[in-house]
Amino acid sequence: MTSPSAQLATFAAELRFEQIPETVVRKTEDLLVDWFGSAVAGHGSRPVDSIARFAMSMGGAGEPGSTSEVIVNRRRTSPYLAAMINAAASHVAEQDDVHNGSVFHPAAVVFPAALAVAQAIGASGERFLTASVAGYEVGIRVGEFLGRSHYKVFHTTGTAGTLAAAAAVGNLLGLNTAQMLHAFGSAGTQSAGLWEFLRTASDSKQLHTAHAAAAGLMSAYLAQDGFTGAAQIFEGPQGMAAGMSSDADPAKLVDGLGQRWATVETSFKFHASCRHTHPAADALLQVMKANKLRPGDVARVIAQVHQGAIDVLGPVVNPSTVHQSKFSMGTVLALVARFEHADLNAFDQHFQDADTVAFCNKVEMQLDEEVDTAYPQRWIGKVTLHTTDGRVLHGRVDEPKGDPGNTLSRAEITDKALRLAAHSGGSTPSQMQAAIDALWHIASAERVETLLNP
Amino acid sequence: MTSPSAQLATFAAELRFEQIPETVVRKTEDLLVDWFGSAVAGHGSRPVDSIARFAMSMGGAGEPGSTSEVIVNRRRTSPYLAAMINAAASHVAEQDDVHNGSVFHPAAVVFPAALAVAQAIGASGERFLTASVAGYEVGIRVGEFLGRSHYKVFHTTGTAGTLAAAAAVGNLLGLNTAQMLHAFGSAGTQSAGLWEFLRTASDSKQLHTAHAAAAGLMSAYLAQDGFTGAAQIFEGPQGMAAGMSSDADPAKLVDGLGQRWATVETSFKFHASCRHTHPAADALLQVMKANKLRPGDVARVIAQVHQGAIDVLGPVVNPSTVHQSKFSMGTVLALVARFEHADLNAFDQHFQDADTVAFCNKVEMQLDEEVDTAYPQRWIGKVTLHTTDGRVLHGRVDEPKGDPGNTLSRAEITDKALRLAAHSGGSTPSQMQAAIDALWHIASAERVETLLNP
Repeated sequence: MTSPSAQLATFAAELRFEQIPETVVRKTEDLLVDWFGSAVAGHGSRPVDSIARFAMSMGGAGEPGSTSEVIVNRRRTSPYLAAMINAAASHVAEQDDVHNGSVFHPAAVVFPAALAVAQAIGASGERFLTASVAGYEVGIRVGEFLGRSHYKVFHTTGTAGTLAAAAAVGNLLGLNTAQMLHAFGSAGTQSAGLWEFLRTASDSKQLHTAHAAAAGLMSAYLAQDGFTGAAQIFEGPQGMAAGMSSDADPAKLVDGLGQRWATVETSFKFHASCRHTHPAADALLQVMKANKLRPGDVARVIAQVHQGAIDVLGPVVNPSTVHQSKFSMGTVLALVARFEHADLNAFDQHFQDADTVAFCNKVEMQLDEEVDTAYPQRWIGKVTLHTTDGRVLHGRVDEPKGDPGNTLSRAEITDKALRLAAHSGGSTPSQMQAAIDALWHIASAERVETLLNP
Repeated sequence: MTSPSAQLATFAAELRFEQIPETVVRKTEDLLVDWFGSAVAGHGSRPVDSIARFAMSMGGAGEPGSTSEVIVNRRRTSPYLAAMINAAASHVAEQDDVHNGSVFHPAAVVFPAALAVAQAIGASGERFLTASVAGYEVGIRVGEFLGRSHYKVFHTTGTAGTLAAAAAVGNLLGLNTAQMLHAFGSAGTQSAGLWEFLRTASDSKQLHTAHAAAAGLMSAYLAQDGFTGAAQIFEGPQGMAAGMSSDADPAKLVDGLGQRWATVETSFKFHASCRHTHPAADALLQVMKANKLRPGDVARVIAQVHQGAIDVLGPVVNPSTVHQSKFSMGTVLALVARFEHADLNAFDQHFQDADTVAFCNKVEMQLDEEVDTAYPQRWIGKVTLHTTDGRVLHGRVDEPKGDPGNTLSRAEITDKALRLAAHSGGSTPSQMQAAIDALWHIASAERVETLLNP
């Protein structure tokens, strides 16, 4: 009888490119290009700059160990510090991917760690993609394992993300099963990230991804060097479940390992806001289009949501910053009602418009039994809309834009990444296009090279 | 009405040397010299070497930013990486200090962070001591706040330790109150450390202190640069208490701030084992001395302990490594019975002796109501001893050796540090004596210089 921890470690250590179905590889490339746009979008962000300044001042630049690209400043540093900075950059635009069932944003923690190490050790594109899939598969299962009670207080991308980064880097470093299990132990015991920062719109989200990628990477390197960790960090009586969940299910750690590819279940973000707002946003769009309504026709909107949305978005009232407004259901619905798409520009330029605020004040959230029961496997969008002329209308989407059944094409993914780069100024359009082209062909690369800096 | 978080941040930011009573300063010097011995004792430890190799390879050595001493290898690196390595080194010999009420080991996380930054910015000895007191006072109160439910699963030195390091470094960097509160938010949301590693005698304890010192230091530097954190990371509805405790008491965060100096309540370790074994060890010594018993006279020992001892030590049966044996009540009592002092040499040379194992098998733990009720404020030691000739004897100590009422003299502290250095080979006796001399006079130093390397 092997423990769930050991089974998951075996999978992560032994995963090879040849075992991964073609569709999963292609989806991983989609997720990679989509992530890269989000990482470049972190250029110029104040909290990301702070983390970059700290990391660069604490070492690595200009030394022999400076092997890895820092995407937001086009310098190089050690893989540890590059992973830290790139992960901080990846989550700030709120445009990175999400896995519904685990409520986890894999790209922001997996790719920064895997890319930094792939560049450091000169790994092939195949090995880099394989490691990334290992990170997705592990992180998603850890998120599902930790359950809804965990997500009420903890930012799963920070907590499960540490394990995802450890799995990706461990696979890339060629850890054996025993070493991978030690890496999990070291990663899990550093796993952290609390939602409390949302209440004051503070910068912790960037710190959570930075911490997860860096601590996960460190755990894998330490394991390679013989450093040991708990054998059952997930399900043990003083492990992650015991400390940070009341509904953890160890069976979820190993659910369909090697058969079910959770990577392909990952959704792209279409709107530039917290994913919890997307189902209602698309449902609002559906009912407004179907009834040819304009924002002025709307008297009241009830967004019918799952409990997790209320937990995360509920504390945000009267958003005072662009970032906080991405966690305001009212602001998001207002921007969608006004512009059909709550993209980065809409938030930057219009989150405090009088028209936005007026619409925002018409929005309330209500727990909906159907939506809540389906969640987190399915993110159903439902709104009830009262018009100024007294009608009561219902909007609904079963898969919000970006979900696997309603996904983005490669052209849409490329376009999104180009727009993110243009928005942040983190790259010229031609450099960005060249980097994106390289990423679409990464599977055939003999070595993973730097993307934006020479 | 200021929140407990804000009151604690105000205290940590505003603490100045002049406000600290003379006795507290002197005790802090005692704790500093005692810590330094433990840090040098980390020299040659495999897990410490792993963390040092990782950190040194990830940057900082030889650059302009390499300002801070790495005690175990006498090189220099950035304050972030030096704090990480020195903290890993400080906890491995299990000889560092402990605060009873919080079940927290302050020295291992506070001094590594404060020393690395003091050396980096050229702080005076007074500022360094002040920052260290801020770290002790904050960390101890956070540990008390998190409570016994927290300690059942979490290693408080890892969790509260992150806040302690942030407070110390924040004070040293001159953060204002608002910045200190942000540093607390960033530190608390990275707070981590699970006991699960004890079950397999793995290396996480060193990772916990390394993580706490490094993440706490990072949080203070980020706050200085404008990076924000949650305003109520301790008591907020999605903060540390919500996620990691079921009996947290916010009043304890601010208990007697500025009047009660928790620093002086800190105990020194006499035996080289988990502190939970010390009360019973001293009680056993008491009853064996009083009755002139030798180990062969003992048929059975019942160590009457608090629940926390059972939680931490209970999983350790048949210890297979020196480190694990320091968490075995049976081994510790056996070494005390045989040598009167379970010091580093006793563990290294005798933890698996037939005589040790035989005595170990005569020991059991039992929950004792009086001991459990007094804990954690008082660590009463009680044993019931059955002799081979049929007598039933009782041993008792009210304050184990090293507690404030039964403390070590400066000569004993110096001797302990010299012995630790000699044991690890981390320093020659003359170098160690010189460093200790410098530390006894640190209060009058204009700048905190390196201690062992030139």
